[in-house]
Amino acid sequence: MAKIWANSGDSHLVEPEDLFTTRLPADLAARMPRSEKDEDGSYETIHVDGQSFRRRMPRAGQLTDPETGLTVDERAPGANDPHLRLKDLDQEGIWAELTYPSIGIWTSSIHDPVLLREGMKAINDWAIEYQHVSPRYVCTASIPLLRVEEAVAEIERAAGLGFKAAFFPVAPPTQMDDWHAEIWNPVYAVLEETGLVLSYHIGTEPHDASTMNGLYYRGPGGALLNYVETTYGGQRAVSKLIASGVFDRYPELKVMVSEGGATWGPFLADRLDEGYRQHASQVRPMLNRLPSEYLYSNVYASFQHDRSAPAALTAMKWQNVLWGSDYPHVEGTFGHTQKTLHELFDDVDEVSRRRITVGAFEELFPHVPPAPDSSDD
Amino acid sequence: MAKIWANSGDSHLVEPEDLFTTRLPADLAARMPRSEKDEDGSYETIHVDGQSFRRRMPRAGQLTDPETGLTVDERAPGANDPHLRLKDLDQEGIWAELTYPSIGIWTSSIHDPVLLREGMKAINDWAIEYQHVSPRYVCTASIPLLRVEEAVAEIERAAGLGFKAAFFPVAPPTQMDDWHAEIWNPVYAVLEETGLVLSYHIGTEPHDASTMNGLYYRGPGGALLNYVETTYGGQRAVSKLIASGVFDRYPELKVMVSEGGATWGPFLADRLDEGYRQHASQVRPMLNRLPSEYLYSNVYASFQHDRSAPAALTAMKWQNVLWGSDYPHVEGTFGHTQKTLHELFDDVDEVSRRRITVGAFEELFPHVPPAPDSSDD
Repeated sequence: MAKIWANSGDSHLVEPEDLFTTRLPADLAARMPRSEKDEDGSYETIHVDGQSFRRRMPRAGQLTDPETGLTVDERAPGANDPHLRLKDLDQEGIWAELTYPSIGIWTSSIHDPVLLREGMKAINDWAIEYQHVSPRYVCTASIPLLRVEEAVAEIERAAGLGFKAAFFPVAPPTQMDDWHAEIWNPVYAVLEETGLVLSYHIGTEPHDASTMNGLYYRGPGGALLNYVETTYGGQRAVSKLIASGVFDRYPELKVMVSEGGATWGPFLADRLDEGYRQHASQVRPMLNRLPSEYLYSNVYASFQHDRSAPAALTAMKWQNVLWGSDYPHVEGTFGHTQKTLHELFDDVDEVSRRRITVGAFEELFPHVPPAPDSSDD
Repeated sequence: MAKIWANSGDSHLVEPEDLFTTRLPADLAARMPRSEKDEDGSYETIHVDGQSFRRRMPRAGQLTDPETGLTVDERAPGANDPHLRLKDLDQEGIWAELTYPSIGIWTSSIHDPVLLREGMKAINDWAIEYQHVSPRYVCTASIPLLRVEEAVAEIERAAGLGFKAAFFPVAPPTQMDDWHAEIWNPVYAVLEETGLVLSYHIGTEPHDASTMNGLYYRGPGGALLNYVETTYGGQRAVSKLIASGVFDRYPELKVMVSEGGATWGPFLADRLDEGYRQHASQVRPMLNRLPSEYLYSNVYASFQHDRSAPAALTAMKWQNVLWGSDYPHVEGTFGHTQKTLHELFDDVDEVSRRRITVGAFEELFPHVPPAPDSSDD
């Protein structure tokens, strides 16, 4: 069976436990997010910015791979080591990766702009070292979002360090105006100017450390409902940029939405167009083009297993569909990447398959060396 | 140009102003929803169940058709008269319609179960008369949802009257458990038993009369964002039924989602499958089949203008895609139905076009006489 090589539009780094203690003054390091796990693994204490919370271990830590029964930590032991990781990637047939931080899940509990700014710098200084190990790593820079001017400054610094993408949560910190507000224009401007891809990862709605992220539903089917709910944040973020005219002001801005599937693209484009045309008398601002045109040109998205996603490109003509591994997470394809890629693409024409597995990624990140040709083993 | 005849999976009746005064005891009629409009048309007073609210006229009333500049009331003058309405439908090329009530937008403000029960009966007694005018009308029965046993009773009564579908809001009244809770099993059971189609209309989240329905966002792009947001409620409702095992218990239950587009079907099916497989250790209940199989077999959806929707059937193989006119609403196709149908279907194969324009509707409502053949005028 031919090995299919694919770039991944959605992967994750796991920051080392000593990241902050080795890179920040002790008083700041002590206030950055950290988890103390109970010996039996069932509860943890979260310390962040002077607050402490006892909570059951989040579901992600308990989740096991349905095929192997292994947890996230066990199933991909190379994930934390940039050299070992390349062996995992080679084995799976993953060439380059857009990687997101893991610690980001807690940063919405930080309310001190100075602490947030210094913490993000520390994460970025670590992540760029990871990126330097191999041109196959495209790490996202973490951005302090409590002050617009500091977000701009860190994006400029990140671009100087060599970052090609910036991680954004699907909604800003709760004390800030939303993504369609004009205050964010300087951020969009500097992203366009530096060429950094605005990279949303789904499931990153800001929340307090005392609440379980993503717990919207309980009762029968709750886990499945919560999983589905995470996807909408990415669609909302994209809608906010389009509806508020961001792409008229910053036409070169590129946006990536990772892990939320891809078939939503044509769907959302059509919904936006219908609202724009049929509610024209209510629409402010008017846009230079139809909403769908921005989505089809400026927005990209990655999926893992979605059977319908290739047809979002082949039949619905959205060229910006990417595949993603979600390595090393349990929602991802680690351990069955080749099986998944063949199921997805064996019936897809070569041009479309190449666009989804490598081409769209290369368009976003042209500095990355080309993936090996998919070939018979 | 050939006239395309299509059934509509999404249309609306507008109840006459004297509906409650002519059909309910005076003390109940006085408490049912009623709007007093100011002379200048900018404000109205809503009276419902002993409460009164002053508010700006809702957007729907101010919306004008982008092509004609006419309001909803002006653009389709036949809508309120079941005989004149048929002339509108003939002109547009719409054959049969699944119709929803309009007064339903206020019923979530009724907190007295007796008032709600009697009010729903009055609406249904009126709607069934409308339906009797022509077999082209498939009216949805309104269901009192404050007591499960009364919902069951009204569904049984409605089935006896000749209703073939029941209107459900995308979320139950706020004081009731959500659609995935077990308390609703008797309702799903009686819907399956009577064969009534469980028909969700998007944008029907319960809300208090003092709040503007569907106002989630303000600021730049707000109207467009609010329009998009309405679609997610239908997806959530379907997800709740699937995830909680409703279709394992009631495998013959058919569900319709009107006005929210259709490309979300394959998208949601894939998201549910990924969550179900990759989070298997957390999923309760386990299901007999993959989530996507229920969605592809038991769930139907209608769209108006969405360019990508036909490919949800032709390329993504969801057979349950319906077109809908949304007559007489401004989001709908009145005045440009033939133009829209041709844009949507001129490049679609005949079998798929027939399935979307008439076949899926006929599968849900086999009692409806067949639409005329689409033919050259």
